[in-house]
Order: sequence, then structure tokens, then C-alpha cells
Amino acid sequence: MNTHTNLDEFEVGYDIPAKPGMDEADIQTPCLVLDLDALERNVKKMGDYSKDHGMRHRAHGKMHKSVDVLKLQQDMGAAIGVCCQKVSEAEVFARGGIKDVMVSNQVTDPAKIKRLADMPKLGARILVCVDDPENVKALSEAAVAAGTELEALVEIDCGAGRCGVSTTQDVVNIAKLIDAAPNLKFAGIQAYQGAMQHMDLYTDRKEKLDIAIAQVADAVQGLMSNGLECDIVGGGGTGSYYFETASGVYNELQCGSYAFMDADYGRILDENGKRIDDGEWENALFILTTVMSHAKADKAIVDAGLKAQSVDSGLPTIYGRDDKVEYLKCSDEHGVVADPDSVLKVNDKLKLVPGHCDPTCNVHDWYVGVRNGKVETVWPVSARGRAY
Amino acid sequence: MNTHTNLDEFEVGYDIPAKPGMDEADIQTPCLVLDLDALERNVKKMGDYSKDHGMRHRAHGKMHKSVDVLKLQQDMGAAIGVCCQKVSEAEVFARGGIKDVMVSNQVTDPAKIKRLADMPKLGARILVCVDDPENVKALSEAAVAAGTELEALVEIDCGAGRCGVSTTQDVVNIAKLIDAAPNLKFAGIQAYQGAMQHMDLYTDRKEKLDIAIAQVADAVQGLMSNGLECDIVGGGGTGSYYFETASGVYNELQCGSYAFMDADYGRILDENGKRIDDGEWENALFILTTVMSHAKADKAIVDAGLKAQSVDSGLPTIYGRDDKVEYLKCSDEHGVVADPDSVLKVNDKLKLVPGHCDPTCNVHDWYVGVRNGKVETVWPVSARGRAY
Repeated sequence: MNTHTNLDEFEVGYDIPAKPGMDEADIQTPCLVLDLDALERNVKKMGDYSKDHGMRHRAHGKMHKSVDVLKLQQDMGAAIGVCCQKVSEAEVFARGGIKDVMVSNQVTDPAKIKRLADMPKLGARILVCVDDPENVKALSEAAVAAGTELEALVEIDCGAGRCGVSTTQDVVNIAKLIDAAPNLKFAGIQAYQGAMQHMDLYTDRKEKLDIAIAQVADAVQGLMSNGLECDIVGGGGTGSYYFETASGVYNELQCGSYAFMDADYGRILDENGKRIDDGEWENALFILTTVMSHAKADKAIVDAGLKAQSVDSGLPTIYGRDDKVEYLKCSDEHGVVADPDSVLKVNDKLKLVPGHCDPTCNVHDWYVGVRNGKVETVWPVSARGRAY
Repeated sequence: MNTHTNLDEFEVGYDIPAKPGMDEADIQTPCLVLDLDALERNVKKMGDYSKDHGMRHRAHGKMHKSVDVLKLQQDMGAAIGVCCQKVSEAEVFARGGIKDVMVSNQVTDPAKIKRLADMPKLGARILVCVDDPENVKALSEAAVAAGTELEALVEIDCGAGRCGVSTTQDVVNIAKLIDAAPNLKFAGIQAYQGAMQHMDLYTDRKEKLDIAIAQVADAVQGLMSNGLECDIVGGGGTGSYYFETASGVYNELQCGSYAFMDADYGRILDENGKRIDDGEWENALFILTTVMSHAKADKAIVDAGLKAQSVDSGLPTIYGRDDKVEYLKCSDEHGVVADPDSVLKVNDKLKLVPGHCDPTCNVHDWYVGVRNGKVETVWPVSARGRAY
């Protein structure tokens, strides 16, 4: 599926939740709904921020997995391209016409390396991250065999505790190997501090990022003393991008969640102690759900449970209501909503703000884009399920 | 997609993890793998159990969402048909050739009711559950308009705390309405006690089920005194089916997870205090994952994170190893595996037993069926994402 998906093939209520032109009230639930006005404001705001601060913004496509949203981020939000986490995901973006595609992750499986090495033939710049000297050799050999060039960044573990090397010496060693390897080009450093993004307090996040920035600055210095310049020093997320921007070391941001927002990110506080979903970013993504049973007076059962979302970062919140209605718990196909005053009726709809947008988007096939009460667009979650 | 999916259209590593005939070692990860021998043994065992005990087994298709697995349950496991939770899911099974399809859930949205009422035209018996008098009228009108017959069961909330009425009086009232409504046939009682299935102790589960059985028996008696007979008294899951079987009240079982097993169910104990994954049921479903980084000596990073599973019921366990390797935590695309003795290498593969099989299957598009080290079948997760 791609941005030119022919929606005529799909049947509303069987394999698609809505079609353009429908009233918002007729959307089949549960499904993902995008408030297009809010989405566009978020996208434009991050674009303006990065331009105004002399940063490039490489939008994180792993959050939404959508070629259409990425194109909006390029057209309206000054994004210079995409980063994503999987080879199959990168292929979706490259096949969809995105010209600058980074896999901000390691690619080590031989079959995946071959696919990656073939990808520049789609007409896109292809970048990948490395944290293992052996991997440099495998990537180079595949690029030689394919007759292509891959760009490679060294990944630093600056606090996420996942992939990435830990010392400047390791960064320099791998960068030299990349620089010397046929058909590979050394492109810089990948340094995303994922573990601090969701810390509530601005000062706690800054403390973690200060450590990361010092580590990255040391690596950049180490590379320079070895004659290696970084085209890209990339990282930054929705909970930290202002720190990387102010660092004087990073030059690329890789924000994802800002565009849609979710309940877990929404709770973190800005410099002034204000929730970031209260002014900094708007909730643009919702799980639309319907009350399907109200057999007990104080409880409504809705049709969005575990198969309509990921609850790894907590339950969804109910959007735009000032009553006592609250999403209490869920099972596979049901959500239990407290309704102490019995204000809900069967077939009423609720908008849920998902706890965590990325894995929630990954269970849905479609985004229903709405504006002024009408369905304006229906976009495929283009790279859904492409986890290889 | 259906059981006749032409795999030629799909590219390994882009949109499908493997093709029949491939070596197990070449499967692209992360993906779902089925041990076909174990699956067939589980399926046959439940079939033999239900036959031997004079029960019908209506296999729960919402767990696997696969027409192919359901057909195996019919052919090898004596299943009389399917139950599932959504109209779009039911359509997948009916279109796939299953002739007895129950939506063991409420259907209240007018567009969904219309789809349900059209479904008997696919040549299947269609059943649905009701807990609201208003809903009877809507179902009947739709069936009249479609010129079809729907069968309806009254759902009793016997402890799950979701949908369903609570008193025998309510059961009788709704059953009478169904019995009197044009183009509806009263089919019996749906009474699934979902809340007790995962309680560790057999005696705790039995205590809960005894209450449910008493409630159901009272309802059946109440219906009989009103001249209404139950063709179906249905319920029962992997943690309870022997209680419903012994009840003398239930006549249909609706087990799902027994076929695949998962870590959360595996932990519950049988009558003798033995885990149910240690003899009663075999682990047949695995998330196959690959080590993609080992930059720290004591930690391996694997390629299965939140987008390859649901962690609502806990993290996955690692299958078939007696070393200290342990799945510690995950983020969207990464799993962090403790490897204190550095026994793993990049590109090693691990088999994870998912915490919760149902929502884990729902994030994948394919089951890779393996036997004797070879890929024997690749089945679509036919109703994946069909949540409407």
C-alpha cells in the first residue's frame, strides 16, 4: 500500500473504517482518527522551530509509519527526510518517494543487509547505524556487490541502554573502519537518549541530556582529531529537542511523537512546569470508540480494548469531557469505562488519547483524517507490521 | 486475504517473513512461528476431550484470527464452528468458508447490525449476543430488511464485569423478546467468566466458576419455566473448560489460548499444582527474534520490542534454554536481553513465548508454520486489524 492507494477496493466496516466525504459520525469504530488541523499546526510548529534554530529535522517515521504523514512533515514542516527503525520500513518510505532515508538502528542479518544495499537504487540516500566493527565489513561487501553506496553513522549509547558503543575510542575505531571501507561513506554520529524522554521534570531531563551532550561532544572532538568530520550529529525527541538544539553539537533532530501526541508524553512538564499537551503540542491522534453495552448503570463498555491500542505506557485518557467518565481497564476487545452518573448511552462515541502512540498506530491499518466534522482523507499506515 | 492467499505476490523480508520450503534458519525476524507438531497435538487433545465428554467445542477465533487455524480445529479438533468478537472478524470466517459463526459479543452500531444481518447470505449460521432489550428490536428489523434469520443468545455477566445482564429476570425478559421478534431465533445463553481464567490456583478458579454455574443454572431453569429452551449454553476458556464440562449445565466450550499457549496462561496451575504449560498444553506459538547488537558484554539487544507483541500481561519468556539469558524489558523495536555470561552472538536467534497470545497475534500479518527445521506453511492472520 502506498499514498496512491485506491480506496475503491476497500469496504467500509470490513476492511476500512471510513471513506473521504463521510460524516465524522458515521466512522466505523474502533479506529484511529487524526484531527487534521491540530496535526498541521504541530507539524508546522516543529518545522518553524528547526528552521529558526538552524537545525535540520529528520522526522521519525517509526512513530506513524505513514508515507502521507511524512510528506506532510516535508511539505509543511521543513523535514529533510525520514529516520525509521527497520529495513522493511525504510523500503516503504523509499518506495513511497522519500529521498533521504536513515535506518537509525543496526542492520546485521545478511538478508536484511542485502536489501539495504539494494535500496539506493530506488533513488534515495540511504543511511544506517553501526555499533560493531564486524558489521562494517558486512555492509561494505553488500554495497560493493550491489554497486551502491551506503552512508553509515556510528551509534553512541548516550543513556538509552540499548544499542550503541560507549566510549569515544570505540566511536573513532568504527568511524575509521567505515571511512576506509569500499562503498561506505562515514556520515557522522547517531546519539538518541531515549531513556530520559518521558521523565516528568524538565530539570531531570536536562540533567540526563547534559551528560549525553558532553559524551557526544567528546566523540565529535575525537573524530576531528582523527580527520573525520560529522555531516550528521543526530538525535533528540519530543521530550528533549530544545536541549540538543542548544547544545552546539547536534545538527539534526529526530522527533516523532510531537506530531500526534499521546497520554504518556502529554504528562511531562515543560520549563515552566506546564504539561506539554497544554500549549506546546496538541492532541492530534485519537482512538475513536463506541459504547456497545451499558447493562450496568455505572459502567459503559466500549469497543476499543487491547487490539485497538498498546497499553505499555498506561491506559488511554478520554478527551474533551469534564464529567466523571473514565477509562478504567481493558481486555482484548473491550474497554471498561466508569460512568457513575450514567451520562453515556449505547452507540455514543468517545475519543481516547492513547497511552503510547507508536505501538498503538502499529495495530491499525488506517488513519481517518477529519476536519469540520467530515472525513477529509483516509491514509494507510503504510509500514504497519513491517518489522523486519 | 484468505486461505487461498497467493504467496507469490509477497516479498520475503519486505512484506512476508518466509515462504514454504525455506530453512527455519532463514526466516526473517521478528515474526510469529508456529510449531506445527505442538499445535496439532493441542488441537487434537481439546477435540478428543470435548468429544469424550459430550461437549461441543466452538473454537475461539478471536485468539488466532486465522481461517487456516480454525479449519485445523474443525478437521483435527472436532470444532463445530467459531466464535469471535467483532462483525468484521465474523465476516472473515464466514467468507473463508466457516459455516457456524457466533459473534460472542454485542453488536449495536446500525451499520454493523446491517452487515451482520446480511451475513447469513454467505451460507453460514450466524449467532450474536444481546444484553439490551432495545438491541433485540434493531437486530430483528435488520434481519427482516435483509430477508435473513439471525440467532441470538442472551449474554449473562457471570463475573467478567463487562457486557451481559446480571439477573435471571433480565435473561428471561430479553429471551422472550428475542423469541417473539420476527426473523430472530432464540438460541440460548452466552456465559463466559473471563475474570477467573488467569487465577493461578485451581481452587480459586473453581470457586469463581461454581458461582457462575449456579447463576447460569438458575437462568436455564427460569427460561424453561417460561417455555424457552437453550440450544446453546456456551462459555469456558483454557483456564476453566473442565468446570463448565462437569457442570451439567453448559453444552458448548469456547476455548482459544489452549491451541497456542502463552506465558501468562502457562503459569496457572492445574488440579495437581502443576503449570498448565508443563503437560496439559504445549507452547506452539513463538515470536522468533534475532540478536542485532551486543555492544555491551552482559546485554544482547534483540529485534522484537513492543511492535512485535503486546506486553499487557507481562514480558515474554525465552523458550528452551537453561542458561541465564532473560528478556528484561523492551521499547518499540528493541528487546533488552540479560546475557551475564555473554553466550549470545549477533545474529543468534531466540524463541520468545509471548506474554499474551491474542493481542500479540493481532500485530502480525503472518504465521510461519515450521516442522523438522523447514517452513511448511505460511498462513495469513486473516482477520488481523479487523476490529470493527
